[in-house]
Formats: sequence, structure tokens, C-alpha cells
Amino acid sequence: MILRRVGYKKSANIPCVLRTIFSAGPKTDPRRLPPFRCLTPGLPHSPCRNIHSHSGPSRYSIHKAKARPSPEPRTCRQSRAFSSHHLNNPNHNCVAPPPRPTPLHCYSLDPLGPAPPLGSSNIAVPFACPLNNKKLSHRRTYSQSASMTVSGSFRRKHKVAVIGSGNWGTTVAKLVAESTSEHPEVFEKDVQMWVYEEKVTVDGETRNLTEVINTKHQNTKYLEGINLPTNLVANPSLVDAVKDATILIFNLPHEFIGNICRQLKGNILPYSRGISCIKGVTVTDDKIELICEFIGEQLEIYCGALSGANIATEIANENWCETTIAYNTPPCDRHVANGNEHANGNGNGAYEEHRDSRGQIIKTKLTPVPQDYPPLDHEVLHTLFSRPYFTVSMVSDVVGVSLGGALKNIVAIACGFVEGHGWNMTAKTAVMRRGMLEIIQFAREFYPETIEPATLWEESAGWGDMIVSCTAARNWRYSKMAVEQGVSIQEIERTELNGQKLQGISTSREVSSFLRARGVEDKYPLFKLVDGILDGKVNVNDIPSLFRKN
Amino acid sequence: MILRRVGYKKSANIPCVLRTIFSAGPKTDPRRLPPFRCLTPGLPHSPCRNIHSHSGPSRYSIHKAKARPSPEPRTCRQSRAFSSHHLNNPNHNCVAPPPRPTPLHCYSLDPLGPAPPLGSSNIAVPFACPLNNKKLSHRRTYSQSASMTVSGSFRRKHKVAVIGSGNWGTTVAKLVAESTSEHPEVFEKDVQMWVYEEKVTVDGETRNLTEVINTKHQNTKYLEGINLPTNLVANPSLVDAVKDATILIFNLPHEFIGNICRQLKGNILPYSRGISCIKGVTVTDDKIELICEFIGEQLEIYCGALSGANIATEIANENWCETTIAYNTPPCDRHVANGNEHANGNGNGAYEEHRDSRGQIIKTKLTPVPQDYPPLDHEVLHTLFSRPYFTVSMVSDVVGVSLGGALKNIVAIACGFVEGHGWNMTAKTAVMRRGMLEIIQFAREFYPETIEPATLWEESAGWGDMIVSCTAARNWRYSKMAVEQGVSIQEIERTELNGQKLQGISTSREVSSFLRARGVEDKYPLFKLVDGILDGKVNVNDIPSLFRKN
Repeated sequence: MILRRVGYKKSANIPCVLRTIFSAGPKTDPRRLPPFRCLTPGLPHSPCRNIHSHSGPSRYSIHKAKARPSPEPRTCRQSRAFSSHHLNNPNHNCVAPPPRPTPLHCYSLDPLGPAPPLGSSNIAVPFACPLNNKKLSHRRTYSQSASMTVSGSFRRKHKVAVIGSGNWGTTVAKLVAESTSEHPEVFEKDVQMWVYEEKVTVDGETRNLTEVINTKHQNTKYLEGINLPTNLVANPSLVDAVKDATILIFNLPHEFIGNICRQLKGNILPYSRGISCIKGVTVTDDKIELICEFIGEQLEIYCGALSGANIATEIANENWCETTIAYNTPPCDRHVANGNEHANGNGNGAYEEHRDSRGQIIKTKLTPVPQDYPPLDHEVLHTLFSRPYFTVSMVSDVVGVSLGGALKNIVAIACGFVEGHGWNMTAKTAVMRRGMLEIIQFAREFYPETIEPATLWEESAGWGDMIVSCTAARNWRYSKMAVEQGVSIQEIERTELNGQKLQGISTSREVSSFLRARGVEDKYPLFKLVDGILDGKVNVNDIPSLFRKN
Repeated sequence: MILRRVGYKKSANIPCVLRTIFSAGPKTDPRRLPPFRCLTPGLPHSPCRNIHSHSGPSRYSIHKAKARPSPEPRTCRQSRAFSSHHLNNPNHNCVAPPPRPTPLHCYSLDPLGPAPPLGSSNIAVPFACPLNNKKLSHRRTYSQSASMTVSGSFRRKHKVAVIGSGNWGTTVAKLVAESTSEHPEVFEKDVQMWVYEEKVTVDGETRNLTEVINTKHQNTKYLEGINLPTNLVANPSLVDAVKDATILIFNLPHEFIGNICRQLKGNILPYSRGISCIKGVTVTDDKIELICEFIGEQLEIYCGALSGANIATEIANENWCETTIAYNTPPCDRHVANGNEHANGNGNGAYEEHRDSRGQIIKTKLTPVPQDYPPLDHEVLHTLFSRPYFTVSMVSDVVGVSLGGALKNIVAIACGFVEGHGWNMTAKTAVMRRGMLEIIQFAREFYPETIEPATLWEESAGWGDMIVSCTAARNWRYSKMAVEQGVSIQEIERTELNGQKLQGISTSREVSSFLRARGVEDKYPLFKLVDGILDGKVNVNDIPSLFRKN
């Protein structure tokens, strides 16, 4: 047995680092490793001497570097002291899954961790203690992956399909295709993108959009001027595009999702997993449903959500920004360590039922991701979506991410009214603050079991998205324009948007109706006011009255 | 004994209302009052039948309406059920001071409470359950006042003095002078404003600035074109301006505050109280000190802080915005109820020592505000600072309000760099988010005893101020200009600001030096980076590296 430390630099003062030992042997005695330094805010730098099994992005690169599977599985040797150091300290902000036999593997998936001395994927990855929430529950973890053996058990690779090819769909397809190229040890290189086939005129010639994308490598209709990776394959057949895909990325207008799901049902891998980039919730008077959960329910798979302060064309132009992905890894996909070489299904969590955003056991029994795929968890998704110009933060709170992405549009409409009316930035900020409080109140009222308000306070999907939506996005822009021109928003939709609807308007209508049906609309005065203004029953002038004591 | 309900409308469905009973009698049996409805988010509307003694803004208006003191003190009859309903419910967000013999008096000082059916100062005031923080401690209360008898025990009125007459000083003086005019039962009408005397030329004539303010009722030098109330009296003598003042409002550049305090010492009422509108902290390598606490220590009084998303000229023009006042009412100013007609000093808190922002008992023994003044608490301050165009939220967390107001300037500088560099709103938002996390981390590290992060997450002094500072204020504007023009900030200060210094620069320098002296600068990568850029050691291009995993 040979013990090696891969890429560990003795001289580097790596904070709270996880170090990698592949197999035990006499060459390096783990007890001789220098102590870890924990940089949790407000904590003394308690030395804790721990050995963590290998996990993190380098698991793949190392696997790749070895070129062939190791003949013997490398067992995990993990001390529990690290976890107990973190979990038992009341001032400690670290979060870990609830105690279970699976060892914890903490590594930086939070891009906001202390600026790491990284640069090389070979060195161990520092643990990013979430900065500021003592109350973080296990739903808000930064990694749910457990250890895995490095031996070549990943016979198969994840195949990615993007469903939707509009402005935002093509942008996301571009970035994930760049990632699959860079990580051939985890993903199949080609990314399929389902394209609603239509004719486009390019260089005076009428051609199919898919053909243009696959030859010219540009989506000339929806993302003109942006070069797409050659491994992004446009496919006019929905069923063919998703064939054998383990990761389905949904990115199309939310009104089409029901129809798409009907077409997909029975034509996807039963163990595929989804990420919904569709910001929104489905609200009727009877109920409210997160779109990612609607997809999951329809397709009998698990589906997470991506949302953040993102403007598609800016990302397509590789202007740096950040996002949040909420993915509550199903228990059946969590996996064991300590010599168990099965990385996906049939691990510890195989017999634990998955629970939805209301804390209820889901009706469908999920099919675990097979063991010969790399584990489909926070790490894989982080690897897939991260780009140097696109920072990804992983959380498990799908409610916070989904509601933040949907309800902030109502606030953006209100901000447009305020600004269009001639009030200034300070007034608009007050409306944003009130709006954020109502969103958190809404989440707490209707998803008390799983909401983690820190998602809204801290993440890009929360305050980040709110700020961008209220200062630089369309709901704000066109509601402002309506007030400035003294016309209704419907008129603006007709004249400026070719009849296209502003999402904030329908969200406002649906949410208000939902709240009215429960008799609680008065608890959400800003939401109520926006609805009233849209109805023409309330004047924009009345907005500040919400904030007045007398 | 006559029991009356003042202004209570039987038909109004007033949420979570406090109802007023002045004296007990057979006319209305309290048990016959309809039940209260509690509208705390997520809670069923539990009926709770409670009677609260009169408190709130109307205590003065009623006193006024009566025209003469009632011959007998009206005793407080308060059921404890209300408090226990709120405090014992684990899902309940309401906050109250820790249990003590003083009955709780909750009323809306939070302008973000459910839109109240107010309009009349005679009706009982609804309790505004803080919307969204289960962890709110007693430091974050919305009222610390206890009941008081309505009988005319307030022989004296609060006299207000504003120290400073610049742009922001004159604006605040204007709004408090408007309030003192409106509330002659609480405040002396005239507000003194100390003006650093200088010559100004008005209508071709050179005159003293104080004379111009007192005759023309405009501060032609610092707030031109804004009409000031006639009861705002400019005074060139600092000592004379503060004579007999019980409320001192500090509003001048922070570099002058040491000298001003030296001049004031011994010349103010020992029981006067302060509000510092000076955003900032005094940081040396040895220590960090809140400016409000510095003032309090120098003058041996208690001093709170005002901060928020405020732009002086906009408020002066009566454009609506909001602010946060942090005032942790000293125990000796908290007062008893139940028949005790003394409202200020020598109440329950008289023998409890006041603690500072680090949880330490302060060195000075405070002199209680005498009993013949209206209680100097959240309510009086709210009344004094609130205007229809200026919404005030009261908290007790001076640390959150002070640090938010000071450190956000560092983030604003970073945002200016980012935007000047050509990055977009989404990138800037990411920097704001990172900055907010570092501010909260800083507060938790150096003020763990009293910081309440919700102040930063929810209040105008937190995210509100951050957004405005990073999109519409000078630190952001001029650092952006520096990058755009490819010159140093010092050059911009020289050419654009007449040598005036940007506060964010000095704050960045001081804070970085303070963190370096403790060896913790790496825990604050954004703060460190701004300092590095100012030093010319780091390039603006490096900002996104903070956010990258690889």
C-alpha cells in the first residue's frame, strides 16, 4: 500500500484544507501532516488534524492523469474529528448533511469562500465555510457528495441535453458545452440542444435553424454574433435530443413546459436528472408549484433549479457574473464510502425516500443513477455549469431559488412604476427592500418546511437577482416606460414587445389571486398594490403609503 | 372609574391590534372586546384577547386633545396573555424585551408592517410583527417604551439641537424642525442648528451665513433653493445652540467630531441624548470604535446612530425615502408602568447598567432623563425624525447600522472599479453581494456580542444603503471615473472634488490596516483587494478572481 499526497504543498498555508490521501502506506504518515487551519469567521484558528478522502474536482483529473484504473480500489481513510470540530462548535457556520454513516466531504463549492491559493486542480481544495449564517440547515449544504474510490469504476459518462434554444437556452447550452469539452472524464463531449425547428435567412439563403447552428455554429435567430462550441449539436427532434442523456437542462418559456414534459415522458432515462433554468412558479388559486418540481413530477425524475443575477446576452459575451443552483441531491443518489466502490445508487441513501419542497415524501420512487456513472451531485453540476466568466454557487434550497426568481419580477414591476413616476434610486431601493421582505414572508408562509431565507439574503438568486431585475431587466424597463408614457403595460407589451408578455405581470396576477383565495392578500401590501395598479384601481402615487406610519 | 376605548372601531378588522383602555370601569367590559387577530406570517390567526395599556404616537395627541391633564392618573391594565402568546409560539416572529416587570408595549414603529388602517392618530396602533427573523434578539426591538400615565406629568418638552449645517446637516435639521412644529406636546418648537459661521454672498451682498438662514430661511451655501422652516434657528455659538437641549443631533464631517466634543463637554445637559448621523467608524490599528459610541463616551451621554439609503438633496426636496435609527434605550431611561407615573429615570431600569456594543458595562454612569420629560425612547425619536417623505425604522442594533454605513463605502469603491472597467450590472451585483457578506463577517468577528445581521439583511441601513451607495453615490461615481479616465483616485479627488477626500478611501485604508494588524486580512478578500488596487499593487482585472473556483 502506498500513501501519496497529490499536489499538496507543504509550504502553502492552506486554510481549512482537505488533503488527499489515496491509499495508506508507510511513505507519509498522516499524523505528520501539518494541522489544518479553520478560517470560519470569528473562530480562532483551531488546529485540527484530519485526513479526508479524496473528493472534489481533482477526483476526475487525477483519474484522468492515471490514464488507467488502479488495480485496487483506494479506500477512504477519514477521521471524524473534522466533522465534529465543525458541527460541535456553536459559533461555527459550517454545514454538513445530518449525521449518517457516510463521511462528510467538504470542499469549496461556494465561490465566495476565502480567495483560494488554487490555480492548480491538483492541489487539495479549501473548504469554504459559508460566511454568515449560523442557522444553515442541512438543506443548504455546499457538497453532498461522499467519498468515492478513484479506481476506474466510471464506465460511463454523463450525457447532457439542453431543452430549449432561445436566447437564454443557447447561452446555457454554450457554457455547458464548453465544460463538457474540458471534462471528458465526466461528461460526453457532445451536448445535444433541442431546437424548435424554424426557417431562418442567413446570407440571403433560407435554411433550417438547426442546420445553421450545426454548420455556422451560431444561433443566428436568438443569439446572433456569438460563436458556439462545435460540440454543441442542434437537434430538431426532442426525443432524439434527450436520448441517453443523464442531465436534462430545461430552458424554454414556462408556458411550453407542460407540453414538452408530455412528449418527454417515457423517452428519457428513468435515472436522468434535471436542472430547470426556467424562472417561475405555477400558481393557480388552488396551489402554488415550483416549476422544477412540476418537471420532476411529470417526468418521475428529480429536477433542481438554476437562477441568479443573469442576463443572457452578457453571459453569452462572457461578461463575468454569478448564479445559484439549487439541487437537493436525492438520497438514492448519495453514496457510501469506505471501500464501497459504488458511487451512485444503492448507497446509504438508497432506502431513504426523497422529500419535496414541502417536506413530503414524493409519490414517485426515483430510479437511482447507476453506479457506473460519476456521482450526480453538487460537484458534477458545479463542474458542468461553472465557467471562468460564470461563477456558480450550489445550495440545496430549491424553494428560495425558485421563489426568488419568480416573485422578484413583481417587485421589478413596482420599481419600474416608482422610477417611471420620477422617484429616485432611494425610493426604488425602499421598494426592493419591502419586496424582498414579502418574498421571504411568502416563502415562510407557504414553504415553511424547507425555505432557508439565507438563500434570498445571500445568494445571487436572492438579493443579486433582485438588484439586477430592478435596475437592468425588462419587467422594470417596460413598467417604467408605461408610467413615463402614461399608457398601460398592456399597451407597452403591444407596441414595444410585439405582444410578448412581461412575466412579472402574469406572476403578479397569479400570486395575487392565490393570496386572495386564502384571504391573506393584506399581508403582502406591495404585491397587492402592484396588482391594484395593474387593474387601474390604485394609483402609483400610493406606493409610499405602504411605508408611512401615519 | 371610567373605561373608554379611544378610537377603536368595532367594524375594522384590525390585525394584531393593541387596544387602548385608559381606566377600568363598567362601561365596556374588556372581555367583550372582539378577539385579536395575529397576522404573523405563517401563523394561523389565533384569537388572543388582550388589553394593552395605551402607548404609541397617540399618547401625545390624546394628551393634547384633552387640553388639560386628567385629574387622576390613568392606570395601566395589561393582560400578560398577549406577550405570552407571542413569546411562547416557536413560529412567532414577534420580539419583545426580555421578561421583566415592565409590561410589553408593542406598536408599529416598523414602517414595513402590514399596511395599517391608520390615517387617524386616535385609533389604536397595530403591532407590526417583524416580518422575517425568528432570531431577532431583544436588541432588535420595535419599541422599548413602557406605558405611561396620560395625566399631564410632562412638565417639560424636549429641546432639539442639530450640530452641523452642511448639506446633510441642514436637511436633517429641516425635517426635525418640521416635526417639532407638528408635535408641540413633545418638543419645543424651535430647533437650534449650530452653524460654522462664514461669509456668504447673497443678492450681491456679503452676509453671515447664520443671518441668511435666519432671515431668508435658506442655507444658500450648502442647500440652495430649499426653504427651511422658520422655527429652525441658525446659531453660530456651539455652546449656546446646545443649551438646554435634550436631544443632540450630530451631523458634521467625522474629522471634526473630536474637537466638537471637547467644546461641548460640560456645556450640555448631563441627561441629554444624542443621535449621530455621521456614517463612519474610527479605526486605528489598535481598535475600531463606532462614532456614536465615541460621542457618547466623550460627552458621558448615550448616543444612537442614524443611517440609511439617503441622499441629502433628495430628502431636502422631499423625495420619499427611508432610513434606520439605531437607539438602544439606556436602562435608566426605560420606565415602569402600572400606576407609576414617572416616565423616565428611576424606573425599573434605573439600577441596571447600560452596556456598549461589545456587551461591556459602560464606564460612565448615565444620568437618567428626568421624569418630567416625555420618555426619550424609540417612539419619541421616531416621531422626531419621521416625515411623510422620510420613513424611519427603529432598531437597537447600533453596530449593524454603524458598520453598514461605514464599510459599504469600501464596497462602493469596488463597484466603481468594476463598472469603470466596463463590467456590467450583474458583475457589480456580485461585488455588492460579496461586500455585504464581508461586512456581516466583520461585524460578527469584532462585535459578536451585539451584532444582529438582520439589520444588514433587512434594513435601509443595510442592503438599502449598499444598493444606493453602489449605484448613485459619490464613492462609486468617482472611483468609476478614475478607472474610466485611467487615473488614480487621488487625481480625481484633486481635479473633481477640490481636494476633498472620498470617505471610502480612508475607510478602506484604516480597515485594511486594522485587519492586517490582526493577521486576518485574507479573510476579507474584497476589502483587501480594494486596498491593493488603491496601492496600485493589484489590478482591477483581478476582482473576478475572488469569485472563481479554479
